[in-house]
Amino acid sequence: MKAVVYRGPHTVAVEERPDPTVQSPTDAVVRLTTTNICGSDLHMYEGRTSVEEGKVLGHENTGVVEAVGDGVDRIRVGDRVSVPFNIACGTCRNCQTGWTSFCLRANPTEGMDGAAYGYANMGPYDGGQAEFLRVPWADVNLLTLPPGTEHENDFTMLSDVFPTGWHGVELSGFQVGDRVAVFGGGPVGLMAAHSAVIRGASEVFLVDKEPDRLRLAEGFGATAVDFSAGDPVQQLLEATGGRGVDRGVEAVGYQAHDGTGEEHPELVLDNLTQVVRATGGIGVVGVYMPSDPGASSDLAKEGRIPWQYGTFFTKGQSMGTGQAPVKRYNRQLRDLIIAGKANPGAIVSHELPLDQEVEGYQHFDARDEGWTKVLLKP
Amino acid sequence: MKAVVYRGPHTVAVEERPDPTVQSPTDAVVRLTTTNICGSDLHMYEGRTSVEEGKVLGHENTGVVEAVGDGVDRIRVGDRVSVPFNIACGTCRNCQTGWTSFCLRANPTEGMDGAAYGYANMGPYDGGQAEFLRVPWADVNLLTLPPGTEHENDFTMLSDVFPTGWHGVELSGFQVGDRVAVFGGGPVGLMAAHSAVIRGASEVFLVDKEPDRLRLAEGFGATAVDFSAGDPVQQLLEATGGRGVDRGVEAVGYQAHDGTGEEHPELVLDNLTQVVRATGGIGVVGVYMPSDPGASSDLAKEGRIPWQYGTFFTKGQSMGTGQAPVKRYNRQLRDLIIAGKANPGAIVSHELPLDQEVEGYQHFDARDEGWTKVLLKP
Amino acid sequence: MKAVVYRGPHTVAVEERPDPTVQSPTDAVVRLTTTNICGSDLHMYEGRTSVEEGKVLGHENTGVVEAVGDGVDRIRVGDRVSVPFNIACGTCRNCQTGWTSFCLRANPTEGMDGAAYGYANMGPYDGGQAEFLRVPWADVNLLTLPPGTEHENDFTMLSDVFPTGWHGVELSGFQVGDRVAVFGGGPVGLMAAHSAVIRGASEVFLVDKEPDRLRLAEGFGATAVDFSAGDPVQQLLEATGGRGVDRGVEAVGYQAHDGTGEEHPELVLDNLTQVVRATGGIGVVGVYMPSDPGASSDLAKEGRIPWQYGTFFTKGQSMGTGQAPVKRYNRQLRDLIIAGKANPGAIVSHELPLDQEVEGYQHFDARDEGWTKVLLKP
Amino acid sequence: MKAVVYRGPHTVAVEERPDPTVQSPTDAVVRLTTTNICGSDLHMYEGRTSVEEGKVLGHENTGVVEAVGDGVDRIRVGDRVSVPFNIACGTCRNCQTGWTSFCLRANPTEGMDGAAYGYANMGPYDGGQAEFLRVPWADVNLLTLPPGTEHENDFTMLSDVFPTGWHGVELSGFQVGDRVAVFGGGPVGLMAAHSAVIRGASEVFLVDKEPDRLRLAEGFGATAVDFSAGDPVQQLLEATGGRGVDRGVEAVGYQAHDGTGEEHPELVLDNLTQVVRATGGIGVVGVYMPSDPGASSDLAKEGRIPWQYGTFFTKGQSMGTGQAPVKRYNRQLRDLIIAGKANPGAIVSHELPLDQEVEGYQHFDARDEGWTKVLLKP
Repeated sequence: MKAVVYRGPHTVAVEERPDPTVQSPTDAVVRLTTTNICGSDLHMYEGRTSVEEGKVLGHENTGVVEAVGDGVDRIRVGDRVSVPFNIACGTCRNCQTGWTSFCLRANPTEGMDGAAYGYANMGPYDGGQAEFLRVPWADVNLLTLPPGTEHENDFTMLSDVFPTGWHGVELSGFQVGDRVAVFGGGPVGLMAAHSAVIRGASEVFLVDKEPDRLRLAEGFGATAVDFSAGDPVQQLLEATGGRGVDRGVEAVGYQAHDGTGEEHPELVLDNLTQVVRATGGIGVVGVYMPSDPGASSDLAKEGRIPWQYGTFFTKGQSMGTGQAPVKRYNRQLRDLIIAGKANPGAIVSHELPLDQEVEGYQHFDARDEGWTKVLLKP
Repeated sequence: MKAVVYRGPHTVAVEERPDPTVQSPTDAVVRLTTTNICGSDLHMYEGRTSVEEGKVLGHENTGVVEAVGDGVDRIRVGDRVSVPFNIACGTCRNCQTGWTSFCLRANPTEGMDGAAYGYANMGPYDGGQAEFLRVPWADVNLLTLPPGTEHENDFTMLSDVFPTGWHGVELSGFQVGDRVAVFGGGPVGLMAAHSAVIRGASEVFLVDKEPDRLRLAEGFGATAVDFSAGDPVQQLLEATGGRGVDRGVEAVGYQAHDGTGEEHPELVLDNLTQVVRATGGIGVVGVYMPSDPGASSDLAKEGRIPWQYGTFFTKGQSMGTGQAPVKRYNRQLRDLIIAGKANPGAIVSHELPLDQEVEGYQHFDARDEGWTKVLLKP
Repeated sequence: MKAVVYRGPHTVAVEERPDPTVQSPTDAVVRLTTTNICGSDLHMYEGRTSVEEGKVLGHENTGVVEAVGDGVDRIRVGDRVSVPFNIACGTCRNCQTGWTSFCLRANPTEGMDGAAYGYANMGPYDGGQAEFLRVPWADVNLLTLPPGTEHENDFTMLSDVFPTGWHGVELSGFQVGDRVAVFGGGPVGLMAAHSAVIRGASEVFLVDKEPDRLRLAEGFGATAVDFSAGDPVQQLLEATGGRGVDRGVEAVGYQAHDGTGEEHPELVLDNLTQVVRATGGIGVVGVYMPSDPGASSDLAKEGRIPWQYGTFFTKGQSMGTGQAPVKRYNRQLRDLIIAGKANPGAIVSHELPLDQEVEGYQHFDARDEGWTKVLLKP
Repeated sequence: MKAVVYRGPHTVAVEERPDPTVQSPTDAVVRLTTTNICGSDLHMYEGRTSVEEGKVLGHENTGVVEAVGDGVDRIRVGDRVSVPFNIACGTCRNCQTGWTSFCLRANPTEGMDGAAYGYANMGPYDGGQAEFLRVPWADVNLLTLPPGTEHENDFTMLSDVFPTGWHGVELSGFQVGDRVAVFGGGPVGLMAAHSAVIRGASEVFLVDKEPDRLRLAEGFGATAVDFSAGDPVQQLLEATGGRGVDRGVEAVGYQAHDGTGEEHPELVLDNLTQVVRATGGIGVVGVYMPSDPGASSDLAKEGRIPWQYGTFFTKGQSMGTGQAPVKRYNRQLRDLIIAGKANPGAIVSHELPLDQEVEGYQHFDARDEGWTKVLLKP
């Protein structure tokens, strides 16, 4: 089969690989119909991780089941499925309490809980930017979709960005009627804004500087805040009569910058602490790293972020963080898509065949105007 | 009346003051029977705050109602009462959602939500280390106690440290059967350990280095971890088979030090991030300040704590912070004391008349062996 | 002033009454701008309660503050306010845990917790179908609205039916993405449907037989189920692929009938138990009575409802019941109205001056086509 | 192997059966070390169910893994395990939201969600009152225990009665500090009382009339209420100063009687509604049946229980019901046993070899004094 393979910083290639097969009775093999490039793929693409060369990338996968092991009794060959980016055993302590993003058994990497397809430090699993994908514990991991091809670009968001944005809202302690500020208008931030609107926020703000992202946010019913036009903290305080928002979502991560290109990993956390009212909550789904040798400061190199923690405490704020347990949310989100209440596919900007993926990575990595979300169609 | 007045760094004095009176129809005046010195009084005593000279200190107050305004219809003269350290209007947005520690109306200080008696930045209210105390919104704030003098040293913990320790456990996301590590064996940490045991923790660890504190922790059913005997992270990982604890409580605050006396405000947060397992939670009731001119580093001076945030995110941990809304918990805690299920008074080390308070402050501030908790009896 | 007074079964009259005054320092007097007739007023109107003759009716009140006592420090003369139907002291055990509908102090009636304006068994308080209304504990009870007259017909739903419908959804254990069936298309049922849509239900069904009610439900985005066209249980099972709904809301009450006029108080509970899936939940805001001398069966006379409880248990369903604590929800609902996310006023069918209220009661009691919700404008 | 087989009303026999084997790759076979007789076994024993003759009984099973299929990768041969009474696939909608007691795939019986070993209507699975037991979806269902034989009589309560009692407390909406009344002092009721004490109840009452049961309750720290000595409602109201309890647990079920032997299925629900305070909650784990041909009244025959529902509504009470999802609780309960915080084995009255089980059933069914809980040791 053909697959997108990491070949060192800023280099990916489409190569021939053996077709994956059922290796355990609980495995399935999925033929991909859509597989997305994710913002977190760029961390690897840019050489900011320890991912090994030769890894097939791709953790946002949708397709049709091609084969199952004889211990698989829920999923059947021919089922159309969404594959959560997390690989979960389903039966460890974390999985059974709903934390499939921190499975204790799927990842043999020292000191890491949680596994994923085609991802640095997340176990020896190839990704799905390819024609076929092996899925461990298929009954646990696969979400069935209605047969056919309808909603394909919506359903493809179920594997990662829609549940991740939703998780950001959940981690913030969101309650119906709250005002929410989302920092970062990439796919995850846009999905967080979409989620907050669906869940009955009274107002949702999305902070970014790219016009195409801000337009998409408005399309989901959010209020755009352009940080290139002035301090976003001031803009948000003014828009809320000085009170600030009830909840904030961090959808930027450790490569936060101030618009000039210089990284300030504490910047978004500082802003959130200031715009969220006392007793409010913050959900963090933008990625921060325990160590980051490429960082610009000594503190950041060892994962230390010197944000205004004293203010956070004094305001009695709370914070939830981490990779989303996709399985906790994807069924309801699928049902909302089918019911016409959610249309996450609205963020798709490009659909490419697999062999144009090199171009896709280049444009997406360059944050080229309009390259919001790229789907590969194997 | 006599009252304990702040007179500058390391100086308090017992002075004559006019008796407080009912100033609003919703006020009460309480005659103090017990009023404690709190660890956070020491922040003021040591000159690490902006508290004004002349302020009567004391926010841990218990007594008998001496007078009420004519808009008070629940509390009656003669009621024995516990006075929560937070002053709450009871009807603002925060109060009505249970966050009396962040009352929007009681504190006219710019940028601060929440008021307290005798406390820096918490409004113009005198404290209760005195013979009488004015209590605003008496029906809202006062908790009635059974008449008499029984359980006085237990009930006196209801105004602050018992609910604060309990809140630390609550903020950690505690669930029955969890393992909990409490950092800091002062009164709040001890109360957190007591709370976690009452709530059905499977194991509670308390980390400190003072033998008297560790003994008290053991008396509450906790396991003592002496950090002067070795890295507490290693001790806790060994005691939990390498898995770490489910929940952590921070009961130390920004003056954390490593045993040598040097302050390392990031130390306890780092330790907690390491010993709490992935997906676990941390409750922070030790105080951190938005600005701390007396701090040893430039970052800490502006409330920036460079802790290992990247690890916190990667482990998907959550954190709750801030001053405890005493009223949310004090009724149940009172009932647990009456039922014989809680005995927070076990931490009392000294009971002094009001005019020996200078000595009390000196010993308590020096962390003299055995000066765990000092009660004043006006 | 003029007021609507109960004068025996099927008799109300507009009479002259003395203007209410501030009687306690915590009172306010409100000049009514809108006051609604509620479906539960009909229980009294029809003589199915023990309400005393001479009582001024009306518990759905909106107006402007005319006077306040000197213990009132949040609410000011001139404030436009919504008056929750529950009268709450704000400081008893139930009030402080959010159950203002079961205030332990406001109602001196033996064996009853909770008070209301102009209502049987709910204390000695006159209602607001009048020109003025006395409001006890004004700081606790009154919700401020933006000045002016905008959204008046939306805001008037904040005193009862919107929070009550919302509470029905809350009591059902609703989660985003759920399918919900609401039984009863009166104002409360319509508000429950509106609430479930706002909160992100994937599908909401409303069961009734009146075309005007079903049309209003569809206007809120719900699916109409006409029980006069066939067994609603079968219709709902078919519409959900046999699985049933996740949540049910009972908005009918003890006078449930099968369309022929005969009362079957167990009918709606039976239907709900059948259409809600195993482990699902039911919220009951339709009123059931501890004793009902006018009931048609001996069991119902003593409040015994012989519904299929064995099925309820076997399916592991849960149920929440009771009058809504309006204060728990009305602030968020107000904000959703202001933000344009909720428009409860869409159910208003008639606006009458106070002196046409007799006609209003007659039409509403007769369930005349199109008399969905009647507002009085004093 | 030898197995206890149902042979018609009041008849069980020890018979030879073929040893169970691994039939699916996800199966395990467990060699039983302890298997208990449950109160719900008596419903079958007494002929009050439709269980088929020839069924091997026994759903409270503990043992050692003898064999596993090749799709089992968590559980290993030789593991000491507790077997939850529910059989769950682990991956259906209900299982993945924690409702393993209502698995949608394990039970082919029309209209029933949820499966169990050796139980009427709960699927074609033989029970474990035998030497060996086949366990489907072994990785999902089995809880590992420390190797050896320690705590055997405590751990054997993890398969049903301890989690079921705990679930009763959970369904009641219990919060720390609450007062709880448990009706029924059989094993489940005793476990509910034990659970409520562990979780920090301020007071726990257990209502029964058998002295041995009341003594066991007191041993767990509960207050005994002997209903043969007077109306339990009056006793409980007096013991709580007229206020009633915060939470109630129903651990009796549809065969409730008043002490004279006559069944009154509404009796315990009526009592609970009266003793639980307004806004309080009730957890029901005593079994009620959708149809009960052996019942004494026509209503009860069709599962209709004419309890005082009008009072329940008027008090705004809530209720949760149904079979316990054992897997949601058994890990924490195991850890509490290991930590010495729980000792459910204290209720064991008899340990019998398998071939004395006929005697065991007879004594237990006769509710003979002192036959509280019978363990079979195969």
